[in-house]
Amino acid sequence: MAELTKVVLDAMGGDHSPGEMVLGAVNAVKEKEDLFVYIVGPEDRIKEELAKYEYPKEKIEIVHAPDEITCHDGPVDAIRKKKESSMVIGLNMVKEGKADGIVSAGNSGALLVGGQVLVGKMKGIERAPLAPVLPTMNGVTLLIDCGANVDAKPSNLVQFARMGSIYMEYVVGVKNPRVGIVNIGAEEEKGNALVKETFPLLKECKDINFIGSVEARDFPYGVADVVVTEAFVGNVMLKLTEGLAAGLFGKIKEGMTATPISTVGAALVKPQLKKVLKEYDTTEYGGAPLLGLNGLVVKIHGNATNKEVKNALFQVGTFKEQEINEKIKEHLL
Amino acid sequence: MAELTKVVLDAMGGDHSPGEMVLGAVNAVKEKEDLFVYIVGPEDRIKEELAKYEYPKEKIEIVHAPDEITCHDGPVDAIRKKKESSMVIGLNMVKEGKADGIVSAGNSGALLVGGQVLVGKMKGIERAPLAPVLPTMNGVTLLIDCGANVDAKPSNLVQFARMGSIYMEYVVGVKNPRVGIVNIGAEEEKGNALVKETFPLLKECKDINFIGSVEARDFPYGVADVVVTEAFVGNVMLKLTEGLAAGLFGKIKEGMTATPISTVGAALVKPQLKKVLKEYDTTEYGGAPLLGLNGLVVKIHGNATNKEVKNALFQVGTFKEQEINEKIKEHLL
Repeated sequence: MAELTKVVLDAMGGDHSPGEMVLGAVNAVKEKEDLFVYIVGPEDRIKEELAKYEYPKEKIEIVHAPDEITCHDGPVDAIRKKKESSMVIGLNMVKEGKADGIVSAGNSGALLVGGQVLVGKMKGIERAPLAPVLPTMNGVTLLIDCGANVDAKPSNLVQFARMGSIYMEYVVGVKNPRVGIVNIGAEEEKGNALVKETFPLLKECKDINFIGSVEARDFPYGVADVVVTEAFVGNVMLKLTEGLAAGLFGKIKEGMTATPISTVGAALVKPQLKKVLKEYDTTEYGGAPLLGLNGLVVKIHGNATNKEVKNALFQVGTFKEQEINEKIKEHLL
Repeated sequence: MAELTKVVLDAMGGDHSPGEMVLGAVNAVKEKEDLFVYIVGPEDRIKEELAKYEYPKEKIEIVHAPDEITCHDGPVDAIRKKKESSMVIGLNMVKEGKADGIVSAGNSGALLVGGQVLVGKMKGIERAPLAPVLPTMNGVTLLIDCGANVDAKPSNLVQFARMGSIYMEYVVGVKNPRVGIVNIGAEEEKGNALVKETFPLLKECKDINFIGSVEARDFPYGVADVVVTEAFVGNVMLKLTEGLAAGLFGKIKEGMTATPISTVGAALVKPQLKKVLKEYDTTEYGGAPLLGLNGLVVKIHGNATNKEVKNALFQVGTFKEQEINEKIKEHLL
């Protein structure tokens, strides 16, 4: 048997916590032999959930955490003061080397702060970017950085490009991933000061497959595998994509169910629509990794179900097996 | 009769030039008595198009321009060197006060450069923002700035907020428009350096209805009437919205027509879908204005049809009647 991957699962902070979290962990350890999960949260509630299922008992351990960080907590304050919360206890376990990574559906801001403050950046890493895998019309694209560290420098973006490239190749499995930079025109001379300074630096990188500018209009078509940008822009792109897709799907549903006739039509198109839109289900890629830390921190959606939880736990496994942090070290230092 | 509004129509540079341009002008002068249109472009081709229609001959005049700026021309070079192009001749007519504004479907970059260099900024205006009216789930939102002048200063954004507010109230007709700033969190302390500096300045403005941060996730829901941002971010938001909407609609069409059964279903839902998606047709608002210049410059879509052309010509009329530039002067100086 391969070496065990140990993952912390923050049982709290999600919309379906702890139920879906626990079920995700149960399914994960049943499916993958070399996985061990610490479920961190209120012991009695987790025990209650676990009691519902059959699973290899030696692969899951409860770590009691009486407190919880909620979406209303300020990130910095929460990490500093809620020392008994499931998130802080979990992050500290990664820091202490008890686990290879942590998966959390909780407060994004707190997880970003906690990842950097508690788990800590790898030596040589300037910033730890949040890099979700987003659906496109042609496969998926890693958008890096969508985190909270705004106003990046060119050297930060070059590190993002390298880390994103390694992640996309070895965790997601895209050979020689195409790396682009978000820009407002295709030409090298276009862009803001940051992009203009970063562009030639990326061109010089022999270890990445830099293909130049990616315009936002083309982003949804999967024109690059890794798309590098400063966190403010990345966050706006991520949130706009989510908001617009949800809004448009809502409108379409509204139209389809507006009359009895359209409802009949909707029933007839539904199977095919489901098929084409299934490509937008990125839960199979797990969650958004926070890269460049001493251990993997994975942010899953607040409304994550057990499937996303399970795949995020597997994601930590792949990250460890593929020795991503070792590869990052080699390329950056 | 009210005073004539004189508008230059750049007949070239669009996908359907000059045919749809000319038809738009014909319909506009037939519908609105107090409108006069200079159609600028190759005289014989425009004459040929005009010959197809009945219209009040005294309301349209052809201004011959032998050259054309294409989408392949570099903006600065095109404006500097193609002096006989329809766009440059048209912009110069606005500069010289022969017309109140210009409507063009041509090269966006060239129009932005030409607007500022040839028509020129109003005294006291730091930057001339491009401010398209975008569809949302609840009405429309003016996104300002989506232009090419990136790396803005806080004082630029404050001017954008004021100009956008005036435009939205008096041209689009939204009373006391809500003004927001694009941010990556709802709280005042969130954001990049630019947003953090701009936020308190906007709060102090007594003449705008500032409602605080707008997250990109909420933008498609029409949570504000005027949304202020730096041009790089605005351009990314505009293009991402267009690209994603087109991509998703394409996917849905693909699913709907995948099988004979789904095609039958599609026929049944189509009338209702058209109804809900009609709200996404923003051509009734004309094109995207470039504000703060000595005359109105309106960018319409490259693939604009006669309806968008007509409404953009009316837009210049409303802009003049409502004395928008006079109102901007009052509020800024």
